[in-house]
Amino acid sequence: MKFGGTSMAGTERIRRVAGLVRAQAAGKGGVRNQVAVVVSAMAGETDRLVGFCREANPLHDAAEYDVVVSSGEQVTSGLLALTLQSLGERARSWLGWQLPIRTIEAHSKARVETIDAPGMLEALNQGEIAVIPGFQGVSHRERITTMGRGGSDTSAVAIAAAVGADRCDIYTDVDGVYTTDPRIVAKARKLKAVTYEEMLELASVGAKVLQSRAVGLARKAGVRLQVLSSFVDESANASADDLLGTLIVSEDEMDEMVEKGLMERQLVTGIAHDKTEAKVILTRVPDKPGAVAHIFEPLADASINVDMIIQNVGRDKGETDVTFTVPQADLARAQALLEDRRDMIGFNRIITDSQIAKISVVGVGMKSHAGVASTMFRSLSDRGINIQAISTSEIKVSVMIDEDETELAVRVLHTAYGLDSSE
Amino acid sequence: MKFGGTSMAGTERIRRVAGLVRAQAAGKGGVRNQVAVVVSAMAGETDRLVGFCREANPLHDAAEYDVVVSSGEQVTSGLLALTLQSLGERARSWLGWQLPIRTIEAHSKARVETIDAPGMLEALNQGEIAVIPGFQGVSHRERITTMGRGGSDTSAVAIAAAVGADRCDIYTDVDGVYTTDPRIVAKARKLKAVTYEEMLELASVGAKVLQSRAVGLARKAGVRLQVLSSFVDESANASADDLLGTLIVSEDEMDEMVEKGLMERQLVTGIAHDKTEAKVILTRVPDKPGAVAHIFEPLADASINVDMIIQNVGRDKGETDVTFTVPQADLARAQALLEDRRDMIGFNRIITDSQIAKISVVGVGMKSHAGVASTMFRSLSDRGINIQAISTSEIKVSVMIDEDETELAVRVLHTAYGLDSSE
Repeated sequence: MKFGGTSMAGTERIRRVAGLVRAQAAGKGGVRNQVAVVVSAMAGETDRLVGFCREANPLHDAAEYDVVVSSGEQVTSGLLALTLQSLGERARSWLGWQLPIRTIEAHSKARVETIDAPGMLEALNQGEIAVIPGFQGVSHRERITTMGRGGSDTSAVAIAAAVGADRCDIYTDVDGVYTTDPRIVAKARKLKAVTYEEMLELASVGAKVLQSRAVGLARKAGVRLQVLSSFVDESANASADDLLGTLIVSEDEMDEMVEKGLMERQLVTGIAHDKTEAKVILTRVPDKPGAVAHIFEPLADASINVDMIIQNVGRDKGETDVTFTVPQADLARAQALLEDRRDMIGFNRIITDSQIAKISVVGVGMKSHAGVASTMFRSLSDRGINIQAISTSEIKVSVMIDEDETELAVRVLHTAYGLDSSE
Repeated sequence: MKFGGTSMAGTERIRRVAGLVRAQAAGKGGVRNQVAVVVSAMAGETDRLVGFCREANPLHDAAEYDVVVSSGEQVTSGLLALTLQSLGERARSWLGWQLPIRTIEAHSKARVETIDAPGMLEALNQGEIAVIPGFQGVSHRERITTMGRGGSDTSAVAIAAAVGADRCDIYTDVDGVYTTDPRIVAKARKLKAVTYEEMLELASVGAKVLQSRAVGLARKAGVRLQVLSSFVDESANASADDLLGTLIVSEDEMDEMVEKGLMERQLVTGIAHDKTEAKVILTRVPDKPGAVAHIFEPLADASINVDMIIQNVGRDKGETDVTFTVPQADLARAQALLEDRRDMIGFNRIITDSQIAKISVVGVGMKSHAGVASTMFRSLSDRGINIQAISTSEIKVSVMIDEDETELAVRVLHTAYGLDSSE
């Protein structure tokens, strides 16, 4: 079980979390479950600690930064262990260096290498609940490392893999993964299950429920995830062993669930939107070998993530317009890099536009089904929404449109693919 | 160098501390000093963390309590290392488990067993400043331990002993040890040096500058202490290697200082007062063998510290009044314990009085000098101050008086022993 910062914000909320953990440990029909819990720092605490580090040294040493910021999770793991004890459970905290969770040396952006937890496994076998601070590990030099903001999800998956957990439940402030953003479409439905691949596509286009790294690691390690809310009705505690949120599983398990009649096969699983990209057009680029490489190599070297790319043959022969998207946050940097290489690339003008949105339909069902993309294009054009660019993957079709039309496009597509709830 | 919570309260103050550390490391005449720094948590932080633990579990598990409360010093040690780096110094934090500082298993009241710090010694030799969170260690079971409130002074002394430091400087919010409380006597003088024994007597009777345990450990390990303020004038930084506070040393070193003319030999070093005790009188206790044991054994078993004891033979033969003092905080508990044993002890009444004070004159000089006590009694009686009880040790004479007369008594004695400053 993994609980985020909002769930751990203060001793009152930690008591609620302890209740959920206790219910999970109690199991069903007299058979107890073994439970390891991964916790974030209290909401706001990591920001406070990061603020101290910035004040102390704007160019901070990442190793000392990790010493400071890892303390937030240390506090909540001790407090949750204490609270579980007050409910009569046996519990103890296991810090990153105590398990240990070995990571690479990269401070403040570490990745888990190995988790050797003989002591914790022994304690779990004896019925003790393990509480583990998320986000932290220990390097081979015996120094505290952290995994970057949001790294607690990744810790939880890595620990679930290491202990061979049946499931890794990620408690957040939403109660599952929806067919689309419920703030835009009131008839959005909570999904019973999605595949890892669908979840990655949904996350990468703006449905930020889980860290993509955590989902990727879960897929690789075969860890079954569940996303659910720690703020559900108290009465739900009674059936804590039931599945209340959204499962994230392999395609094989999804197929099994469909065969057993546990859920219906969907062509499209969800509609995602993303307003964080910006469009860049380079006009009149010479249409010769290597020209495109001159554009994208420097961006890649600067770790600027280029997404959609379109080449339009221009009016003059031997020239072409190149359009692509980059994150808005990187737009100024990208522009400067390209201006520096104007002569080498040989373009005429740079036109940029931040007022764009990317709308994606995602579904593992489209692998075996044609016509998904054409439904998308027709539905949007029927409502007069202009498509500026298109990109596709095996389980996703994305279009670039004007940002103002985001909500309309999402609603139109949600209905077109039959995702609206009947309630 | 050891800095308390007031000195570490916020990044501004930590910057000031870093300046003092840097000046100390710079040394004199081109010869650098090797510096290890022990830090407390930011003022108020430990209280906040203790509050969380109490809310989580009033009967908290001391091992998890230690996980939570030790985080305060972890934060300040990382921040001081970062701040020193921002000033161009090489510095790193060494947590209790990293050095390691091995302690006994007693969580929340641990004592240092051994400090094995090959890594830190190597780093010190290479000119790196070591920053160590006070108050914390690690048990043989590899769990975090803490040493009880105020334990950072003890950590600092233990670390100074382990690295063979030339001196252990304890920075506090006072700039040294005074001949008496300067709030009572404006002419109180700061002492250049006191012996460990004098410091222990002064601390035990209310001059709370240092934890007694820290002073005791320093005496045992032969660590030279200095008490000084981190809030001195900035210009004083220039001569950080000079002695600015009060040295606490062995009697031998004190003798040497006197021989070298660095300070004058004093008969009495200081006047201390203590208003935290209460007086208990048991009337008409049978004057037979074992009666006194019946009184004091249960108090000792309950860890109630009995200080002055006087037996007055009563008016009736075979009976006696027994008077003694206990800390006011333990008075109710002591009274209940004695009432429970009324029949066994056989006393008539319990009379208690919290309105008393203990005034002590302390000085290693009185070992070789008679007349110190008689000066005390005469000076007080000349001013009409009634002495209710007397106790003495080799370097101390204490009297119990009415609490209202505390300030008068301290002033009278300060003058009588020639301690008033001439400025």
